[in-house]
Amino acid sequence: MGKGLTKRSENYSKWYNELVVKADLAENSAVRGCMVIKPYGYAIWEKMQAELDKKFKETGHQNAYFPLFVPKSLFEAEEKNAEGFAKECAVVTHYRLKTDPNDSSKLIADPEAKLEEELIVRPTSEAIIWNTYKGWIQSYRDLPILVNQWANVVRWEMRTRLFLRTAEFLWQEGHTAHASKGEAIAETAQMNEIYANFVQDFMAIPVIQGRKTESERFAGADDTYCIEALMQDGKALQAGTSHFLGQNFAKAFDVKYATKEGKQEYVWATSWGVSTRLMGALIMTHSDDQGLVLPPNLAPIQVVIVPIYKGEDQLALISEKANDIVNKLRAKGITVKFDNRDTHRPGAKFAQYELQGIPLRIAIGPKDLEKGQVELARRDTLSKESIPQAGIENYIQNLLKEIQDSLYTKALIYRDTHITEVENFESFKEVLENKGGFISAHWDGTTETEEKIKTLTKATIRCIPFDFPEEEGKCVFTGKPSNKRVLFAKAY
Amino acid sequence: MGKGLTKRSENYSKWYNELVVKADLAENSAVRGCMVIKPYGYAIWEKMQAELDKKFKETGHQNAYFPLFVPKSLFEAEEKNAEGFAKECAVVTHYRLKTDPNDSSKLIADPEAKLEEELIVRPTSEAIIWNTYKGWIQSYRDLPILVNQWANVVRWEMRTRLFLRTAEFLWQEGHTAHASKGEAIAETAQMNEIYANFVQDFMAIPVIQGRKTESERFAGADDTYCIEALMQDGKALQAGTSHFLGQNFAKAFDVKYATKEGKQEYVWATSWGVSTRLMGALIMTHSDDQGLVLPPNLAPIQVVIVPIYKGEDQLALISEKANDIVNKLRAKGITVKFDNRDTHRPGAKFAQYELQGIPLRIAIGPKDLEKGQVELARRDTLSKESIPQAGIENYIQNLLKEIQDSLYTKALIYRDTHITEVENFESFKEVLENKGGFISAHWDGTTETEEKIKTLTKATIRCIPFDFPEEEGKCVFTGKPSNKRVLFAKAY
Repeated sequence: MGKGLTKRSENYSKWYNELVVKADLAENSAVRGCMVIKPYGYAIWEKMQAELDKKFKETGHQNAYFPLFVPKSLFEAEEKNAEGFAKECAVVTHYRLKTDPNDSSKLIADPEAKLEEELIVRPTSEAIIWNTYKGWIQSYRDLPILVNQWANVVRWEMRTRLFLRTAEFLWQEGHTAHASKGEAIAETAQMNEIYANFVQDFMAIPVIQGRKTESERFAGADDTYCIEALMQDGKALQAGTSHFLGQNFAKAFDVKYATKEGKQEYVWATSWGVSTRLMGALIMTHSDDQGLVLPPNLAPIQVVIVPIYKGEDQLALISEKANDIVNKLRAKGITVKFDNRDTHRPGAKFAQYELQGIPLRIAIGPKDLEKGQVELARRDTLSKESIPQAGIENYIQNLLKEIQDSLYTKALIYRDTHITEVENFESFKEVLENKGGFISAHWDGTTETEEKIKTLTKATIRCIPFDFPEEEGKCVFTGKPSNKRVLFAKAY
Repeated sequence: MGKGLTKRSENYSKWYNELVVKADLAENSAVRGCMVIKPYGYAIWEKMQAELDKKFKETGHQNAYFPLFVPKSLFEAEEKNAEGFAKECAVVTHYRLKTDPNDSSKLIADPEAKLEEELIVRPTSEAIIWNTYKGWIQSYRDLPILVNQWANVVRWEMRTRLFLRTAEFLWQEGHTAHASKGEAIAETAQMNEIYANFVQDFMAIPVIQGRKTESERFAGADDTYCIEALMQDGKALQAGTSHFLGQNFAKAFDVKYATKEGKQEYVWATSWGVSTRLMGALIMTHSDDQGLVLPPNLAPIQVVIVPIYKGEDQLALISEKANDIVNKLRAKGITVKFDNRDTHRPGAKFAQYELQGIPLRIAIGPKDLEKGQVELARRDTLSKESIPQAGIENYIQNLLKEIQDSLYTKALIYRDTHITEVENFESFKEVLENKGGFISAHWDGTTETEEKIKTLTKATIRCIPFDFPEEEGKCVFTGKPSNKRVLFAKAY
């Protein structure tokens, strides 16, 4: 069919941009770098939110809401964090417009309404939140604080792409405060685990869990844990991070607590987040040249029923059967839509649902009625079969599970066959250039080497995987000794 | 008890501010006029969101997300709307900070990163959304568009109060596009009805439905429908509005559609919203001098169980019984917390839960164990009774319903006894001054009279109620003929 979609093999990047727009997920707005998330795309995001929110609450976290703006002086307080975000932030300088004296149809920022102190639109909320926590924490009895926020943030990226890198994006940011270092590290690890489980089990995207190198860490963190996924074009995508912040923000905002013994100690912190970037990971992991492919867990509509008919009488008969199937599927908790619009032909409907990645499509025509069957089409494999109407709800329930598993397995096989061990820099460059994917290599542990490799190849260290064994080896670039491999890749 | 809370009769406004902070609902932040919504307050807001979101989706609406920023030129496009919001908006002028050349520990807005066109932080999203809809709408087949957004907005209010009036607040804003005027008006009425049902049935707050006068309308609307509630101090609070926008935004953004007959017509629009202001309405309708009172539908914790014990052995016995009750209540869908903290005494726990408005408190001591009973305290009436442990889950389930109804009835009686019909301006002033509440009076229909009454008394026309009968009368201020009463009040 094609729907005018560029093929992945022709131009992966163009394929992605076209798919996002044509599948009605998102579009660029009139504001540079900001996107509009369309209802269909937002419905997928809502499914992610609901599942994550449940996991956060099950582990004792509560939601709250902190201000959109950060006064400049607070922003400056944690030096590394400020430095990390200062170059890409939106700055509010005025609180009023007035009529342009030169053109009464125009408005200008009122020079008399200039703020004494500029406000930064939050690029992340550590500063405003730790300034708030100062008032919430006096003693060990006030700890831990386990808070999450669903919010919009703004980072003035120069080159933007829908979902992957936008000036404004939606995310959740958890901010926790603890009495001990050990507890904060355990929280960081727990959230890394929750993210990994969510992305793997719910989004059907395999990930590698590990820690970031010093140069790839969050600005202001002592340690950053991450989950890294691999896209179909062989580039990696960071899908979620959790940061052990040490006492950096507690010291910057002077947040101390009285221990049981009455001593004053600085509080330990973590923060962790995932964003609408996950939509990009979802699209680029599963979709094909026909359009979006959705794991059933994330599909706003799991099954669509399209009637094939001539005239009202046929439609009435088919509708009766279709509504019966709708009821049976709904009773199983399956979301289903009966598309009986008479403004569109079946072919146009098929094309739309294929593009939008509805996992299963049922077509019912007069012949199917006679034979007591339906035509069932699977989006992921593009295969079709005729199945009996009797017991269809159980068949579909099982098939949806099978699709969910099959998408994960397919992505896992792709990922696992795209982790290549290399022993020298020539192979490194050759694999990166021709095969792509993760390169597993020894590294001497220095930022200098990391930077040089990045400059020469654009590959960065995506993570130091938790489950890689200790193993003697030599740095792929300098030949210096190393005791563990790390994963390099080009990345989104 | 008092908990140091100012009495309503002493200083209502102070009582409100103290209650919001002491009950852990919200607090002021380091950003002028912006609040921090604390976990307990946010949990109540989440319950409102969930119920409203369900009602929106049941009526065919979908969620989406539009940019935080509105380019100044789009903001200017609908003249009345721009005029209405220009004086209270946050303006982004720069997209980068740089190190202050005079002090390397400070940051300043980088003069080289000045935006060519300023961005307004959305005070409401009609402009950015209608500019987007232009691309979504070509023909009648694209209509209606029924979209809602949950978002933060910013209005630079000079005098702010937690929940009631803050520079940044959270809300939902629905924005719909229709092929006909009639359909748009029906949507406006439907949303007014949904808001009224939600606020009455779910929040236990009686409201009056009606339309706004021209001068109280939303800037850019042809008609504004509203729900008006009455607070315990006799002041009204606008709890939700839905606007019939006519073709104003379609014309401003040139949004036309091809009819079935192939003619080009401007699209008809509505918008509608409720905000975290509803938290203020909730607090001021039900709460008392002891603190927050929550309708069970909105209580994050509906029942709390507090053990009264000496020593570990007693606690173990009581805990066994308490956990049994917890399980039975949870099986009924009731949210319950067993507070077995050993860091706080029962008295402190009682005080906290009273302040936070937990609808029911169960205390279990050794005597209760012996007698197979518990002590049950009702937050709304502050009454206590001993009830048998056997069958407690059914008793509590019914009692929660009774509390929900009883709070509504109590508020309704207060509201209905505070609607006073007056026939002349002397009584008008006298009732307004001494009794407060809504004043039902004839009005000559002119903005001039409305303005004069406002200047003299601070009372505004809250609404022209839908269900008030036509009735000949004379304007309470000018004596000119009038055929319907309207409701005046001082308002939040």
